[in-house]
Amino acid sequence: MRHAIEDVEYAEYLFDRFYGIGSCESGGVTRLGYTEVEDEMHRALCALGEEKGYGHFADQVGNTYLYRPQYSMDEPFWLVGSHLDSVIEGGRYDGVAGIIAGLLVMSWAERDGVDLPIRVGAMRCEESSNFGRSTIGSGLITKEIYKHDVGEAVNKQGETLHEVFDRKGYSLTPDRIQGIREYLELHIEQGKVLEEYGDAVGIVSTIAGPRRFKVHVHGSAEHSGATPMGMRSDALAAAAEIILEVEEIGKSEAMHQSVATVGVITNHPNALNVIPGEVELGIDMRGIDVASLDRMEARLKAACTRICEKRRLKYFREKTSDIPPIEMSSETQQKLLDAAKRLRIPHRLMISGAGHDAMSFAHICDTGMVFIPCAKGISHNKKEFATIESILDGAMVMYEHLKEEAL
Amino acid sequence: MRHAIEDVEYAEYLFDRFYGIGSCESGGVTRLGYTEVEDEMHRALCALGEEKGYGHFADQVGNTYLYRPQYSMDEPFWLVGSHLDSVIEGGRYDGVAGIIAGLLVMSWAERDGVDLPIRVGAMRCEESSNFGRSTIGSGLITKEIYKHDVGEAVNKQGETLHEVFDRKGYSLTPDRIQGIREYLELHIEQGKVLEEYGDAVGIVSTIAGPRRFKVHVHGSAEHSGATPMGMRSDALAAAAEIILEVEEIGKSEAMHQSVATVGVITNHPNALNVIPGEVELGIDMRGIDVASLDRMEARLKAACTRICEKRRLKYFREKTSDIPPIEMSSETQQKLLDAAKRLRIPHRLMISGAGHDAMSFAHICDTGMVFIPCAKGISHNKKEFATIESILDGAMVMYEHLKEEAL
Repeated sequence: MRHAIEDVEYAEYLFDRFYGIGSCESGGVTRLGYTEVEDEMHRALCALGEEKGYGHFADQVGNTYLYRPQYSMDEPFWLVGSHLDSVIEGGRYDGVAGIIAGLLVMSWAERDGVDLPIRVGAMRCEESSNFGRSTIGSGLITKEIYKHDVGEAVNKQGETLHEVFDRKGYSLTPDRIQGIREYLELHIEQGKVLEEYGDAVGIVSTIAGPRRFKVHVHGSAEHSGATPMGMRSDALAAAAEIILEVEEIGKSEAMHQSVATVGVITNHPNALNVIPGEVELGIDMRGIDVASLDRMEARLKAACTRICEKRRLKYFREKTSDIPPIEMSSETQQKLLDAAKRLRIPHRLMISGAGHDAMSFAHICDTGMVFIPCAKGISHNKKEFATIESILDGAMVMYEHLKEEAL
Repeated sequence: MRHAIEDVEYAEYLFDRFYGIGSCESGGVTRLGYTEVEDEMHRALCALGEEKGYGHFADQVGNTYLYRPQYSMDEPFWLVGSHLDSVIEGGRYDGVAGIIAGLLVMSWAERDGVDLPIRVGAMRCEESSNFGRSTIGSGLITKEIYKHDVGEAVNKQGETLHEVFDRKGYSLTPDRIQGIREYLELHIEQGKVLEEYGDAVGIVSTIAGPRRFKVHVHGSAEHSGATPMGMRSDALAAAAEIILEVEEIGKSEAMHQSVATVGVITNHPNALNVIPGEVELGIDMRGIDVASLDRMEARLKAACTRICEKRRLKYFREKTSDIPPIEMSSETQQKLLDAAKRLRIPHRLMISGAGHDAMSFAHICDTGMVFIPCAKGISHNKKEFATIESILDGAMVMYEHLKEEAL
């Protein structure tokens, strides 16, 4: 939809304020979670809040909240959140788009005098790029995802989260965040479904949970010239069969909105004159239907056994992650869909294949997500791009819904 | 066969004299070509020659020759050669076994007073591990393989061969070696054909020439969770099809003693949550039959086109190496086979899948190779192992042949 010039200008202003922080020569940004660069992003957010007269504070794990000062701190509130960290050489929209949307919504509520205690929340360290663990800030403050060893997770500099928290005065065992009426998050889709269907916003029904596996295939590293075809135990050829089987498994479960991907392959010794002796595959399966995920896992196991037995190779399979799919609040979904309808913004109900801070909040309060298109589905990359108009579209849908909730 | 105790002891003594040079903590040896460690190997060889009263000299590219001093330097000679360099963390038999065999043959000729001008030749830098080019010493001195740019090849320290040669006083344009009646080389098989068939020696008929290719597959790197199966351009899945096709191509040409291997795979970005966007494969095809090699190359091309068209991906294929198969002298083959028969040593005529210094000499003189088994076919690895008895078996076959050539 067409947007007011002042809204476009304010959104562009917000985007520009974050633009240079963590810029890389490559053209992307590196804003790793719980680093000085992320701190700078949070300081920029506080400064943007101060310009508008909002209050701000940080919680016990460093997440930043802006609030409308006319409301008591004890009053239950709507939280519009996302994150300000990025992957290494990532894009400028993943996370930041949601924070800009929150600032837009808050500014419109102020402008229109809507009686609604809204806060904008910037969660820490959503990306796994620094500590190998994602959604740390939201996971800790909701006390849902990280019950165990996140304190021992080690960052790129070799420091544990525990050490970083000690240095910064944060707590690994914070009090759970209280008083959230509803958590809303706008995020770039990180896929190209909206783009392919020509929709402006997506209302998320479920966030797919990744099941991840490592498969190690053990063959025999032998001279590629001196070993006849009939005497080989080629670990890479076996791995190739597994890769194609994983693709087939994903395709056969596509009707259930499941996907299966081999994203990682490590080949030893990876030399032109040596038959591969050991291959490790990293497999990612996602879906919103547990029965479908179970079928995919069983088929993967059967395929590894069948392929490696046929080739007389050994393999070892381990499950490295098993996060169940997380439903968004059905009530919130419906309200967001109704809001998009009222605004005549082309929309669709869709799943999220990627994980988000909303997963943490879904355990403790009504939670909803709004997706906006990103060019060619590219994210986690300097080429990541979304239009300011798309951010405004998504923010409008959230605001249209929130206006209806006004006290 | 059973060997005289003094032969076993002398062979063990020779092996021990080289043992410690370039030893790694890992248990293997690193004796890169044209380095100080290789120089030390050559000095050890000269010292071993001096102990026996042999003369020694180096040619213009640093290859070392031991000779029986009773023969004039102008007299045509039999050259028993191999190399003293190794790959990184390689084994102690690849190359060295052939030099030990040469020293054994020379000592037997001395002992028996056989009238035969024999030389033992240690070629420089047979392995490609330092300069990315193999058989440099033998290739230069025979003026056959390296006509062009070997001087610009760069070693692990970033020095060109040209610079190394200037420093050491060698020449990239030496006079061609003259006067060789026949070149003989004993080498570990680097495969497990002899072991599987229970043969003690292999007489090489042909050295397979490698044809090598790089295939770059270009897909789209997209979020593995957010991209439905039907919207993907997965470069790794396409590469997996090519890997299996290369294996099929090799199998279908196995009757012609051809092999085809994907030894190298590089996957980008190689992250669990990203569909692979770019994959590069390194493919090695070898054979002794040019028509078979041609068929394999044509089928590879057709397979890449078919697979990538079907998947709507782009690919780029380049041929990085095309060395024709090299025949050993049929007369020398027959003489070596006859010698093995006379000695009642179990033997077989076989091809060499790996390259050797013998390839350089085959262009300028009658050339023959004797293979001995190595445990499980393992080479280029600290686990490389051959028995002293096997080295003696192979040396006996060469000596039995050479005795017949006595003047």
